[in-house]
This record gives sequence, structure tokens and C-alpha cells, in this order.
Amino acid sequence: MWAMTMTTNTDNAGGVILDLDGTLVDSVYQQVVAWRRALDDVGIQLSVWRIHRRIGMSGDLLINALVRETNRDLDASLVDEVRKRYTVAYAEERMSVRPLPGARELLQALTEDGVAWAIATSSRAANAAPALEMLGVRDDVAVVTSDQVRHAKPDPDLFIKAASVLGVDLQQSMVVGDSVWDLLAARRAGALGVGLLSGGYGREELERAGAYRVYDDPLDLLGHLDEVGLRRAF
Amino acid sequence: MWAMTMTTNTDNAGGVILDLDGTLVDSVYQQVVAWRRALDDVGIQLSVWRIHRRIGMSGDLLINALVRETNRDLDASLVDEVRKRYTVAYAEERMSVRPLPGARELLQALTEDGVAWAIATSSRAANAAPALEMLGVRDDVAVVTSDQVRHAKPDPDLFIKAASVLGVDLQQSMVVGDSVWDLLAARRAGALGVGLLSGGYGREELERAGAYRVYDDPLDLLGHLDEVGLRRAF
Repeated sequence: MWAMTMTTNTDNAGGVILDLDGTLVDSVYQQVVAWRRALDDVGIQLSVWRIHRRIGMSGDLLINALVRETNRDLDASLVDEVRKRYTVAYAEERMSVRPLPGARELLQALTEDGVAWAIATSSRAANAAPALEMLGVRDDVAVVTSDQVRHAKPDPDLFIKAASVLGVDLQQSMVVGDSVWDLLAARRAGALGVGLLSGGYGREELERAGAYRVYDDPLDLLGHLDEVGLRRAF
Repeated sequence: MWAMTMTTNTDNAGGVILDLDGTLVDSVYQQVVAWRRALDDVGIQLSVWRIHRRIGMSGDLLINALVRETNRDLDASLVDEVRKRYTVAYAEERMSVRPLPGARELLQALTEDGVAWAIATSSRAANAAPALEMLGVRDDVAVVTSDQVRHAKPDPDLFIKAASVLGVDLQQSMVVGDSVWDLLAARRAGALGVGLLSGGYGREELERAGAYRVYDDPLDLLGHLDEVGLRRAF
């Protein structure tokens, strides 16, 4: 079986905590399109790349940040309205979402080799459910969504909760994500961050946010698990 | 008026050659969506970020590169089919395309100050026309599309042609673009490349491809023209 063996000498076992959108499913660009439409609907016009760079963070922070760029006043009803419209718009885009190459195989390999793993996403449970189903994630897998914590990424709450559910030591664990928000949250949680390019960030952006290593997608990571400290324990 | 004053001492005047999609109009993500649909229609399934990173290059190269990633045989009829489907799919996405912040103002400032400028795009004339209209680009502006040259970006042909039409020295000119293909083509043409983040690349990706400076978008560039060697000649 595989076991996390990190740089420190400790008997505490670590686990692997994976982001969902852009990391396991190819949904970031559909999320961008949906946020764009939701914001546009309430009269907030923003360049699309600015939305792209906020995907993966807490929905509230995302809306705050984007509204701030337009110098508009932010009120709770506007945030609610944008969130609602986003959920509707994303539901329309979701039919084109597919698992990323190697995603199912990566999860299967972790399971078969006895690695404790969880999924931690800034999305709400309702928005995440179809992606989890697509990946064949069973009910007994630890999945932490933004509904379950006070603050989503880049706060570390999702990862802290995931480690707690798994019963692993976060400082001995690995976080896999495609956005700088995953990697910043990983650093705040004291975990080892591994970046994937499959969310559309550049390699250096992920490295500068603290990625220990950067791979193309789950398939590429699966082929290089040894590089990130996962080794088969005979 | 403004004049290009580059690092060498020469009397040859330079100009400014601007890319169109992602540089002056906010259309990259719509192009990504359209290419994705066109490829999907012919059974080529690719992660969306891989398509994003090819936007801005010659359409033929883009299709070649993407098909190669799927290990499929490439034939001319397949390329034609994908191109046709792309044109149809992009026409559907185009309604959500808008000028980028500061795009019209940047072009106006260049015109008012007597700087020779042109637009050079890997798109075909038919696909570029609505964007040019949206920007208020008049018929007397030099616009070079892929139809007019043998090879589009990252080959330097578009920029060479643009400089020729403007009657400026390419080595004294500035190329403004949002993709690494613009910047690689700028280097091959011997021009000074300036990158914009508005196409969704990371800053470091653009710098590594040779960008002399990187700005957010046309508005940000407009506020920093002095940094790239454009100065008002009293």
C-alpha cells in the first residue's frame, strides 16, 4: 500500500485532500461563463479573465472581490441575487462538464492503496453533487463543501475539516488543487500544496502561490506520485 | 504628438501593432468555448485549459496541436470540418463579446498623437470583422488577418505585413498581445513585445515568452505608455 511519508519524522499519518472543480472535473471554464452571466444579469460587467482568476475561492469572497473592482456598493441582497443566478447559469453549463483525464484512476489508486483521501471544495453541496456522481465518488468518501465550514478557500477551514474527518495530520498531508486559492489555503493549513494546470492557471502562478510541484492534470500527477512523497510501503 | 523612441539611435520610425482577440476585445473565453464545441462535434475530447493555451495561434496550427494531443491521425478534411464548425460555434458566442476596458481609448490616443498603429490577428477576416466594428476601427486602419499571409502566429508574417503596410521599421516597433504566440511572433519579428493579462495567461508565462512589460489590459497599458518607450515629442 501507499503511505504519505513527509519530510518530518513522525508517526502521524497524512492524507491527500483534493479540490474538485478544475482538479478532478473539467468545469472551471463553465464556472467562469456562469459567473459572467450572473454578474452581467445584475449589471456588473467585468473582463472574463478577472472572473477566471477568482474561481475556486469562496463564493462570497469571489462576489466581494468582483464587485469591488467595479466600485459598486455591495449589499447582502445583491450577493444573494448573484449567487442564485450563478446556480441557475451553472446548471445550464454543467452538461458539458467531464472528468479530467486520470481523475477517476487517481482516486481509485489512492483507495486501492489505502491512502486516506478526501475532497474539499469551495462549492456548495448542491453544485458539487453532479461532479461527485460523475467521478463515481461513493457516499462513504469524505467530502467537505463550503456549507460545512465558516469560511471557504483561501481560508484553511475546508482542509482542516477534511483532515479532521479523515483523522489525519494536516501537516503530514498533501493538498491537490488547480487554483492559487487552493495553494494559499494549503499553506495556511500547513499542508503540502501540489498544483495542477487543468484549471487554466499558469505554472509559475501556482508555484508562486506555494505549489511544491505542478502537474498538468490528475493523469500526470498519477504518473508522478513518487515525486510528491507518496511511496508504496511494502 | 507621441513617437516611438526605442533603445537604438535610428531615424526609422516604429509603430504599434496590436493583436485583436484578448488584447482589444474580450473574446478569448468565447473562442475557447467555440473551439471546444467544434472539436467535441468531431469526437475530439480535450481538456478546456489545453484549448485555452492554444488560442491566438494560427487556426491550422491550433487544430494540428490539439489533434496531436489525442494521438489521432490528422487529415485535411478533418481540419476543414473543425474550422467550419468553429466558425458556426463562435458566431453563436459572439453576442457576449465586448471591447476590453480602455481598448477604444488606447486606439484613439494613438491616433490623436500620430502614432502609426495596426491590428494583426490570427483570425480570419470574417471572424474578425464584428470585433473591429465594435471597436469603431475605421476602414483606413491597417488590419492584417490570417487570410493575407502564409503563416499566422507564432510565425512573424502578420507583423511583418503590418509593418510593411504602415511603412514602419519592425525593429523599432511594439507588438501588444495577450498570448505567448503574440510574444513569440514578436521576438521572431524583432519587435518589442508587450503582454496583457486580459487573455487569461499568467504574468510569468508572458514574461517568459519575451514580454518586455506586462499590463492588465488596454486601460492599464494606456496609463503606462511611458514605460514602454512611447513618449510625447514636443
